[in-house]
Amino acid sequence: MILDHIGIAVKNIESAKKMYESILQSKAYYEEVLESQKVNVAFFKTGTESKIELLEGIGPDSPITKFIEKKGEGIHHMAFLVQDIHAEIERMKKEGFEALQESPKIGAANKLVFFFHPKSVGGSLIELCQKQT
Amino acid sequence: MILDHIGIAVKNIESAKKMYESILQSKAYYEEVLESQKVNVAFFKTGTESKIELLEGIGPDSPITKFIEKKGEGIHHMAFLVQDIHAEIERMKKEGFEALQESPKIGAANKLVFFFHPKSVGGSLIELCQKQT
Repeated sequence: MILDHIGIAVKNIESAKKMYESILQSKAYYEEVLESQKVNVAFFKTGTESKIELLEGIGPDSPITKFIEKKGEGIHHMAFLVQDIHAEIERMKKEGFEALQESPKIGAANKLVFFFHPKSVGGSLIELCQKQT
Repeated sequence: MILDHIGIAVKNIESAKKMYESILQSKAYYEEVLESQKVNVAFFKTGTESKIELLEGIGPDSPITKFIEKKGEGIHHMAFLVQDIHAEIERMKKEGFEALQESPKIGAANKLVFFFHPKSVGGSLIELCQKQT
């Protein structure tokens, strides 16, 4: 599987964007208000395949807001790009990984996204994502 | 900057390797006992540029052992590959990022590595690394 992005939980996406501009020496190439997931996101390229995704929660019941309340700002998840997300979900469930949701949802840039529970993945939150044509 | 790897703190590298083999459907391509950093590491390819690095602490005073005691297993750092680590360190210090060490050390696969303090990088531990020829 290809590492698609690292998701980073931030309190304020405007100041976080400036910080990552100064680290990566590049600008965010894509931004979106993702109401369905209650997040504002901004993506930076970190090579030809991988990206950094900054995530700011929208409102107190956003998963990102809750994550920051519990653990503080920082690395939130890692996402792997797959060709057939439904097949990969079934495969991983059979391997014993615990799904965090029933079925894939629409994530940033209209990708299908699906998360597994960190407690079944050694403490790391893992996302599978698939491009939709 | 290119994302080189995500470092993941694990209690037991043998069981973590098996878990990542089942997630990534590939075997670790490189392993090393890095006494100087008090870690055992194993790398998996996740594309043409990025890798997953599993880190198991060696002994109670390993930074990885201490991290797991405090925060539990999970994503530990992200590392960016640079061409001139000394120039990048100076640049980032000038931008206000706080160094965790005086000078680069020898990391896995004989790379030069350098870490910045998470409190100066929005809670994320960031490594710069450079290949040595």
